[in-house]
Amino acid sequence: MKILIDGMGGDYAPEEIVKGAIRAASEISETVVIIGPEEAIHDQLRANRWKGENIEVVDATEVITNEEQPAMAVRKKKDSTIVKGMNMLKTGEADIFISGGSTGALLAGGLVILGRIKGIKRPAIAAWFPRAGKEGVTLLLDCGASVEAKPEYIYQYGIMGSIFVRGITGNEEPVVRLLNVGAEEGKGDDLHKTAFNMLKESGLNFQGNIEARDVVFGETDIVVTDGFSGNIYLKSSEGMSLAIMREFKHKLTEGLIAKAGAMLAYSKIKEIKEVFDYSDAGGAPILGLKGAVLKIHGNSKATEVYYAIHRAIDYVDSNITGMIAEAIGNSEELADKGEE
Amino acid sequence: MKILIDGMGGDYAPEEIVKGAIRAASEISETVVIIGPEEAIHDQLRANRWKGENIEVVDATEVITNEEQPAMAVRKKKDSTIVKGMNMLKTGEADIFISGGSTGALLAGGLVILGRIKGIKRPAIAAWFPRAGKEGVTLLLDCGASVEAKPEYIYQYGIMGSIFVRGITGNEEPVVRLLNVGAEEGKGDDLHKTAFNMLKESGLNFQGNIEARDVVFGETDIVVTDGFSGNIYLKSSEGMSLAIMREFKHKLTEGLIAKAGAMLAYSKIKEIKEVFDYSDAGGAPILGLKGAVLKIHGNSKATEVYYAIHRAIDYVDSNITGMIAEAIGNSEELADKGEE
Repeated sequence: MKILIDGMGGDYAPEEIVKGAIRAASEISETVVIIGPEEAIHDQLRANRWKGENIEVVDATEVITNEEQPAMAVRKKKDSTIVKGMNMLKTGEADIFISGGSTGALLAGGLVILGRIKGIKRPAIAAWFPRAGKEGVTLLLDCGASVEAKPEYIYQYGIMGSIFVRGITGNEEPVVRLLNVGAEEGKGDDLHKTAFNMLKESGLNFQGNIEARDVVFGETDIVVTDGFSGNIYLKSSEGMSLAIMREFKHKLTEGLIAKAGAMLAYSKIKEIKEVFDYSDAGGAPILGLKGAVLKIHGNSKATEVYYAIHRAIDYVDSNITGMIAEAIGNSEELADKGEE
Repeated sequence: MKILIDGMGGDYAPEEIVKGAIRAASEISETVVIIGPEEAIHDQLRANRWKGENIEVVDATEVITNEEQPAMAVRKKKDSTIVKGMNMLKTGEADIFISGGSTGALLAGGLVILGRIKGIKRPAIAAWFPRAGKEGVTLLLDCGASVEAKPEYIYQYGIMGSIFVRGITGNEEPVVRLLNVGAEEGKGDDLHKTAFNMLKESGLNFQGNIEARDVVFGETDIVVTDGFSGNIYLKSSEGMSLAIMREFKHKLTEGLIAKAGAMLAYSKIKEIKEVFDYSDAGGAPILGLKGAVLKIHGNSKATEVYYAIHRAIDYVDSNITGMIAEAIGNSEELADKGEE
């Protein structure tokens, strides 16, 4: 198995990418391929005294930044890590591509170079979301790969999410719920009502709607929603989490008595921060492409890279892309009904 | 001025409603009218030793619960607090109606009995949202009055929100932003792109898109969005806030050393909870109806009722309903353009 990682993707590339790759590679037998400016990557490998055999370097001289228009950048920068990486996935030179680079460029590159799995209407970004007071994590999709929405997209997110969760966690019957404005059947706009009906008939373990405030308490394994709402959900939770953490830090360090308390309680605060820091849980797969792509956060450091590489092995081992292709083939009839 | 309050609306009715009404009435010259089962309300007034002159009681024998189908309940329960209250608004026997009852019934009753202001496509629920590290609050609308969305609805939310914020806070040029998946112009689906263009041409102080994670940091006075996304925004923030607070309480009380710290820091935690407890900031107006309706949270206690009554006076004094009618009349041409 060859795990390809974008050596230039993210705020701490290439240093932290290489460090994370080394940490993972020294534990596994799979080959980790780092793509990026050859010399810079080799410098980092040397700086970290890498002596192993299972890291390869592939040269790519260009980088697509977050500021560039993704489709345009993918067309122009043929020697970028993202374009070259996608091509390696396509030709089978790599089994999975991990990147902390521009999400837009990964999507555009994925669509243009790899293409969608036959029958898939739209790819989806699937993110792991933390749970409060409960074991495990919840998969939320789509987090914004497609801002336009149709019922059959959401229905397909249910299929793809179920296959992914099954493959990664071993949970054979993951619970799927639809993000909606109320828990009862019949809630929401036409889009969500139709999606509800399609999911109900799907054969998935669909257990109805879920309100946004209940997601974090872990009452479902998978939350499906259109990309617009998914993005709003994810970012509003992130904003609120950030705001409260800051306020806590601020409040707990003002005043003398509180300060003494804060110092004692500080380790606990750090623990909480970790619970709700869902910037990473092994990366967010872009599902529905003809190839396995794992997006990691732009601010990923070595630890996140390390976990993503481990998660990538499970991803490839579970043959998720192949299983999605098979499931979508079987479900096309139903999806077509929703499109009428 | 007659401020009508639903004596049976909410989890702590009628006790806390009456207490809050008494507290407010003893400070103001306006009349507070409590609607509900006459005897029960009078019992509460007596129990609280009310001796003043400016509380009146209007008898209503029925209550619409959250479990009832709103439109049906409004049709059948003619002697309910909500139906009778809306009728009193319509006939001018009251200037504003405050209720902690079923939001669906308030909307249905408002639409059927009061009707929409001429030209208003959809009423909107507007909620105040807390700010982290910044003075003031942010108005978010629509929070779910209409789950179906059209660009001109969102455009009208901008007009209504601006008039409301101007009337209540005195801020003459409140900043309006559109909730979207990215801050740059051109982001989002067709709905939001079209709404963006309409807002841009509106003459409002429109300053573009805002991402969900930035709202809580107070970079805008008003956030407009379709009712589905608004609901997702509000409830996901609420869920995350609740989850973190619980986790803090839990973590800070486990272990001996942390416990000592927690006790010292406890007062600070309470302060933070208050900052992010946006269950109430004087109630959420339902804008766009031919009458002033202020929805308060179902779990409101006397303090929230007290603040809502004070806020209600500003609401009526600012003639917000009249000003919306005037503004919408002037803007209909533009709204019609968006509908094409």
